Amino acid sequence: MEGTSKHTWRTKLHEIIYEADTPSGRLFDVVLLIAILASILFVMLESVQSFDEKYHDFLNISEWVITILFSIEYIARIVSVKKPLKYVTSFYGIIDLLSTIPKYLSLIFVGTHSLVALRALRLLRVFRILKLTRYIGASTNFIRALKMSRAKIGVFLLFVVILCVILGTIMYLVESEEGSGFTSIPRSVYWAIVTLTTVGYGDIAPATPLGQLIASVIMIMGYAIIAVPTGIVSSEMTRFSTKSVNTNTQSCSNCLAGNHSDDAKYCHNCGHTLHD
Amino acid sequence: MEGTSKHTWRTKLHEIIYEADTPSGRLFDVVLLIAILASILFVMLESVQSFDEKYHDFLNISEWVITILFSIEYIARIVSVKKPLKYVTSFYGIIDLLSTIPKYLSLIFVGTHSLVALRALRLLRVFRILKLTRYIGASTNFIRALKMSRAKIGVFLLFVVILCVILGTIMYLVESEEGSGFTSIPRSVYWAIVTLTTVGYGDIAPATPLGQLIASVIMIMGYAIIAVPTGIVSSEMTRFSTKSVNTNTQSCSNCLAGNHSDDAKYCHNCGHTLHD
Amino acid sequence: MEGTSKHTWRTKLHEIIYEADTPSGRLFDVVLLIAILASILFVMLESVQSFDEKYHDFLNISEWVITILFSIEYIARIVSVKKPLKYVTSFYGIIDLLSTIPKYLSLIFVGTHSLVALRALRLLRVFRILKLTRYIGASTNFIRALKMSRAKIGVFLLFVVILCVILGTIMYLVESEEGSGFTSIPRSVYWAIVTLTTVGYGDIAPATPLGQLIASVIMIMGYAIIAVPTGIVSSEMTRFSTKSVNTNTQSCSNCLAGNHSDDAKYCHNCGHTLHD
Amino acid sequence: MEGTSKHTWRTKLHEIIYEADTPSGRLFDVVLLIAILASILFVMLESVQSFDEKYHDFLNISEWVITILFSIEYIARIVSVKKPLKYVTSFYGIIDLLSTIPKYLSLIFVGTHSLVALRALRLLRVFRILKLTRYIGASTNFIRALKMSRAKIGVFLLFVVILCVILGTIMYLVESEEGSGFTSIPRSVYWAIVTLTTVGYGDIAPATPLGQLIASVIMIMGYAIIAVPTGIVSSEMTRFSTKSVNTNTQSCSNCLAGNHSDDAKYCHNCGHTLHD
Repeated sequence: MEGTSKHTWRTKLHEIIYEADTPSGRLFDVVLLIAILASILFVMLESVQSFDEKYHDFLNISEWVITILFSIEYIARIVSVKKPLKYVTSFYGIIDLLSTIPKYLSLIFVGTHSLVALRALRLLRVFRILKLTRYIGASTNFIRALKMSRAKIGVFLLFVVILCVILGTIMYLVESEEGSGFTSIPRSVYWAIVTLTTVGYGDIAPATPLGQLIASVIMIMGYAIIAVPTGIVSSEMTRFSTKSVNTNTQSCSNCLAGNHSDDAKYCHNCGHTLHD
Repeated sequence: MEGTSKHTWRTKLHEIIYEADTPSGRLFDVVLLIAILASILFVMLESVQSFDEKYHDFLNISEWVITILFSIEYIARIVSVKKPLKYVTSFYGIIDLLSTIPKYLSLIFVGTHSLVALRALRLLRVFRILKLTRYIGASTNFIRALKMSRAKIGVFLLFVVILCVILGTIMYLVESEEGSGFTSIPRSVYWAIVTLTTVGYGDIAPATPLGQLIASVIMIMGYAIIAVPTGIVSSEMTRFSTKSVNTNTQSCSNCLAGNHSDDAKYCHNCGHTLHD
Repeated sequence: MEGTSKHTWRTKLHEIIYEADTPSGRLFDVVLLIAILASILFVMLESVQSFDEKYHDFLNISEWVITILFSIEYIARIVSVKKPLKYVTSFYGIIDLLSTIPKYLSLIFVGTHSLVALRALRLLRVFRILKLTRYIGASTNFIRALKMSRAKIGVFLLFVVILCVILGTIMYLVESEEGSGFTSIPRSVYWAIVTLTTVGYGDIAPATPLGQLIASVIMIMGYAIIAVPTGIVSSEMTRFSTKSVNTNTQSCSNCLAGNHSDDAKYCHNCGHTLHD
Repeated sequence: MEGTSKHTWRTKLHEIIYEADTPSGRLFDVVLLIAILASILFVMLESVQSFDEKYHDFLNISEWVITILFSIEYIARIVSVKKPLKYVTSFYGIIDLLSTIPKYLSLIFVGTHSLVALRALRLLRVFRILKLTRYIGASTNFIRALKMSRAKIGVFLLFVVILCVILGTIMYLVESEEGSGFTSIPRSVYWAIVTLTTVGYGDIAPATPLGQLIASVIMIMGYAIIAVPTGIVSSEMTRFSTKSVNTNTQSCSNCLAGNHSDDAKYCHNCGHTLHD
């Protein structure tokens, strides 16, 4: 890791951590991926009581090793990047910090140890390391379709939430006296969401005939409502993929413009004759 | 709120309440939105027993303040509008009345207080205030697609209801002796709806092998049936959005050919310049 | 109901019962619709114990009235139709018989009374009376799309059933010792169907970590699998509705053939010039 | 099964087992299908305790008969095929072995008998015997659409899993103290999957207001997320099926224009006769 004649050690470190073109850069990514997966496995196993009792010491040491590794990585990222403050305040920077701090805090404050579980957030780096987003991005239509749908789906979800507040309130008026779990309006709204999204835990369920009638109406409505977001995404995706089906692969011999419609005879950009 | 030389105070009031173009109109909308959200928050908190016991007086006073504000708004709306009767009998007019009356009634009749919760219906005004429907309406295709789907989905839902009545009746014949919750046909129909819509509370669940077999058939059917409303909405939306892909409405001044792509500069049929 | 000079009473009866063009035919349909809905309401109310105790006599008499009405209708249908055997063995003929017989049987055999509930099957006549299928049929594309999808969805459902048998068997091997409800393979298969279709009653739920892991895999799979029938129906519907978008409404002046493609210059049927 | 003058018995056996063109080959397929269905029925019935007690001997003998039949089939397949090793190590080869061995093992080792249930895996042969995949394959677009979707859906499912790990961890931090079933992180992740996929057993359900709030957000998210795989499959299928709508591949012999409708007799571009 010492600076060579051409690169200082800092540029080298940046190359290893932030880029994946060099062998050492690729190795770093693989090691980081394994470390993240291992750290989450350890946190998970520790939360299982029977497992924790048996292997408490092993798990504790493993977690300290990973915490120190993550700390080194965190410092290395700050040192090697050009604008350290930008990294520290970035989405991934905050997650990286959150995944190391709780272990240190647990030395000082009792009860903060379970926050180590926040390390699970580092899983989001998997997408960046495996470059999965770029993989999907290859068909940029996919992303564009999702973005176009986002606004419509946002309004749709707001409508669903308001509907659930109203329905939950009505169910509270109907069922609150029955001891069937509708003890308060927030709980009834929670039930309405559980029902409309067709999750249906059953921890709260209507007991009166009227309540069951209203619940039936809500469910049948939910059946029709769920078609809306699916329809939005489907049509948006179909639109983009149909648009790019355009089978005319000619490009104008004069101006090189492409994307001509299938029965075009003249270039739509410069007016030059096609097919010549 | 007094009449100026040009506008009487009534026109002014109408402008503030019903329009959002003036600063005071916009302010009124924002205040109303906050008041509605606050009123629902108070109603919700009051229904939570532990909260109500602690802050009963505070919640009671807040509700009276909001009730009086809503009453003033209601009267102001009636006074300022040209056809008061039309407003009073309109959808929003009825909701506005329903959200103020229960609090006054609770002074006279015991037990009507919980009807205050009907105030949640005022949440529907959020769409009008935030002009969300207009926002979606920008792509009027969305609305048109939903309207075209509505009739088909209506028939589809009627079919689902009839199916549930028949299936519920059959399950009642099979399971009623088993003490598994199918105590009456309406309850069994309720169960059929819970199952077919894939909500599945589990408060009623078949216990006999035959009942479980029928339930399995219902669920597998439900899996296929849910595809129908989604298919309807998707295809309807795709149809409209495909149709409107080409927004260029120009036609060539030389050969009158249309359907040019959005960035076309020359006619694709005769090569004549467009935009002239 | 007596024969006039032109029509025998039999033809007249046929007109009333089977057709809806005459005022008396339309009246018959409306009365039948009300009778069916009333009969189902009575059967439902009778199954609710608290209601049955109070109004037992009223319900019993009402059911006898409706049974006799249905019997008269059944006989009238047989008498007036040209091929009585064809009606008796038809789908609706069997349902009509099944909805009258149980009441008579209950006089002879004890315990057959609950079969009266089979009357719910008559609800299917609602579609015929309201002519809802013809209403949908107006867009015959809808029906054709469903038919085209049917075969694919059939194979898909067979695949789902086989998958559930295999998954249920595996879960039985994993969970049968745990007392968590997986007491036999059929029950486990039932659980697999409940899970894959995302109904999720919760009467049977995995208790071992391995069982929960397998259940998680099943659920995630179900998330992806549910996209298949929806995709089939959506694409089939979109295909037909796109096909019929063809906006060229010309018909050939020579052979009157229609459905020309949008840029057609000559009739595709007789070769005659269009646009003349 | 003896060799004739032209075919050795081995080629004959191969023809019977692996091909379905000859009557004996078709008979073999039918017998095998029945044997597989019967074997699974017996395994299922045996797992039902009340049934096993009554007919234990009958079930045991039936299973031995089927096991011996399957063993003969397995040996016959190895003997008749050209590359026995390839069959033995193939997917179906392993399943065929797994469905015979456990019964023999149960003679030596106690407790391995329940593995007989693995025989259910043979159900997958149903697709091969009934040639259902070829049936779907007729519209190869279907398969191609699924393949195109597979990669996107894979990334999507990975995203769902990571989301569930993170959400489960957060719920563990919120609910673990409440005794509401969130006893460890793996269990909480299991709950998150149960919730996001809208299965909703209800064996684990949030009890704190904060937990229910987070659960509500997860459910509303799940409502929107489920639209993504459906949208992917729908658009992929629509794309392929739209492309292939016009099956007429003729081009006019005079002007070379293509894209004629299926029943075209004359070129729509120049009016020349087609089919010449």
